[in-house]
Amino acid sequence: MFPDATAPAVTSVFTAVLTEGPLSRVALARRLGLSSAAVTKAARPLIELGYLEELAATERTGPGAGRPASPLTVRAGREFFVGVKITGDELIGVLCDLRAEVRASAHRRLVAADVEHVLAELAELVDDLLGSYRDRAHRLGLAVSGDVDQATGLVRYSPFLHWRDVPLGELAARSTGLTVTVENDVKALTTAEQWFGEGVGADSFALVTVGAGIGCGLVVNGRLVSGAHGVAGEIGHVGFDVDGPACHCGSRGCVEAVAGTDAIVGRAREVSGRPGLTLDDAVALARAGDAPLGAVFARAGTAIGAGIAAVANLVGPARIVVSGEGLSAYDLFEPHIRAGFQRQAFGAAADCPLSIRPLPFEEWARGAATVSIKALVAS
Amino acid sequence: MFPDATAPAVTSVFTAVLTEGPLSRVALARRLGLSSAAVTKAARPLIELGYLEELAATERTGPGAGRPASPLTVRAGREFFVGVKITGDELIGVLCDLRAEVRASAHRRLVAADVEHVLAELAELVDDLLGSYRDRAHRLGLAVSGDVDQATGLVRYSPFLHWRDVPLGELAARSTGLTVTVENDVKALTTAEQWFGEGVGADSFALVTVGAGIGCGLVVNGRLVSGAHGVAGEIGHVGFDVDGPACHCGSRGCVEAVAGTDAIVGRAREVSGRPGLTLDDAVALARAGDAPLGAVFARAGTAIGAGIAAVANLVGPARIVVSGEGLSAYDLFEPHIRAGFQRQAFGAAADCPLSIRPLPFEEWARGAATVSIKALVAS
Repeated sequence: MFPDATAPAVTSVFTAVLTEGPLSRVALARRLGLSSAAVTKAARPLIELGYLEELAATERTGPGAGRPASPLTVRAGREFFVGVKITGDELIGVLCDLRAEVRASAHRRLVAADVEHVLAELAELVDDLLGSYRDRAHRLGLAVSGDVDQATGLVRYSPFLHWRDVPLGELAARSTGLTVTVENDVKALTTAEQWFGEGVGADSFALVTVGAGIGCGLVVNGRLVSGAHGVAGEIGHVGFDVDGPACHCGSRGCVEAVAGTDAIVGRAREVSGRPGLTLDDAVALARAGDAPLGAVFARAGTAIGAGIAAVANLVGPARIVVSGEGLSAYDLFEPHIRAGFQRQAFGAAADCPLSIRPLPFEEWARGAATVSIKALVAS
Repeated sequence: MFPDATAPAVTSVFTAVLTEGPLSRVALARRLGLSSAAVTKAARPLIELGYLEELAATERTGPGAGRPASPLTVRAGREFFVGVKITGDELIGVLCDLRAEVRASAHRRLVAADVEHVLAELAELVDDLLGSYRDRAHRLGLAVSGDVDQATGLVRYSPFLHWRDVPLGELAARSTGLTVTVENDVKALTTAEQWFGEGVGADSFALVTVGAGIGCGLVVNGRLVSGAHGVAGEIGHVGFDVDGPACHCGSRGCVEAVAGTDAIVGRAREVSGRPGLTLDDAVALARAGDAPLGAVFARAGTAIGAGIAAVANLVGPARIVVSGEGLSAYDLFEPHIRAGFQRQAFGAAADCPLSIRPLPFEEWARGAATVSIKALVAS
């Protein structure tokens, strides 16, 4: 059992040690603006219940050195978490420790995306992953693309799964016996980056994902942006070319209508005159020097860069991570993403560092696990 | 003297009463998550020093009714504030009370925009405005377009004034004897809207200004967004038409390159073939039914709407106010701003209410005064 976190200091002390630790009580008090007594009081139940432990004391020297500081650190093996990303044709699962280190992973092909089938496969996947960790794992995080109400675990609409108003949290809790959190996949990945990745310590940052869709998770003033009307981070539907190709959203020339996987394949078929061309074909031909196909990836990269510049111009995050399965064609995109960004970023917004890197697919599942870790901490 | 606000409760109690009051101590405790004792303690010096007062008690009825609640309200006349917007050819000034109600206004033409001349005119304008309020006014807020470091009062770069690295706060404090705050004009206006306008009580909202430039102030998670690299809210440099007209920022087809005043005048001259055409001429002709000129305003409105949709898609504010001196041609823009927004807003982002309204120019000065009120409260 995690300590009852009605005292906000318990949550903030544990979160700080988890994401930025090891930290001494003195450092925690300074960082959190709490008294030493409040830190000591908050840490006590966390130590008693095995979530935190003291490292061996380090000697302090110099003027004012009091008793040696014993930094607090997280006992990563105290509890384990299952994270699963649900896609239209596959479940990708991981088992993580408290620090979101992946200890095991597994996946299952789906023959259909109907809720019943997915839930049955999910229960078996979770069972496989739990293995010998069963008695120390009580929480499952699920990540789904689309419109998800995290508070209730309801999947309002997931286009790739063709789901509408599925109470996924409730259903999965029943079939697995675990405490379940459900989150939008891009937000889950952003949370993982905020707690355990390049977002640690940043008051603001953005994660942009490139693939079938172009998504974005945003942290501003230290908090994930959700959008007052349920929409945020829709970088795929920032305008790029007002007279460009039609977008599935009803507008024209959106970033996604130029740079989403379908858009790239469609345009590659047009310019090559080969209606059966696949994405892999297009990547191979462009890499081999096919100029018209190279130009398709170049324009897609430019559009993504312009979308990222819109994020930098409007919100000004400290840094931006660009990732996603689309970046398996990293070499074709990357210079154009950077050039498109530099072209459109306004003044000092161009100073925002971009980390452009491919994303192992199980990172999505780790993101889902991170959301369940966060739910534990705030429980 | 305002009470020493080292106790954060003093600031939060005063801010809540100022922006959302009158409020009873019980309502304040509930809203701020404080104990009744903490609210009473924080309110005491505010009452003693004349910033707050108790309204006549209102009877409470029903079960659990204790002693009658006496709502706290701000004594608006306790202190006065001067706000001045500095433009390239004019100073616009107001004198406001604590609730940012304008009690007096004045303006002065500038014959030059050099710092010395502006400071001399500023000192006289402030002197005029202070009039009989002199003994109850100690603070001056200045609003300037461009890159302003609010913390130090330094104007890093103001293109319309041709200023670079001007320590305006320090210079104006010396010439007026007042405590000076300097803020970017769009941020100042956004602060006024957040504290005393349509942004009150909203966790997130945006203010878009239309004129010579297209600007945007953003509040996310209750705080004004500043940008980690000093840039935020640059809606004017969101992409609209990747192959569109060159923008002064170095890119092409930015919102401002289509919808800024210079862009509109330039395009209007092109389509009319009249190189001497002014903005007023273009507005008059478009109103009289000139179709090509009408189309110039329509495209500008569409670009503004697309930029606003980018804000809604990425950040999802609760509401968006669109204003600025450019909206004197409101009738020509408004339907196209709305249509451009609806076209580009993704899903539920289109539910975000837009208030499109002209902005009296002295509102900018009131924004500057609001920043000085905020500085008092946080002092």
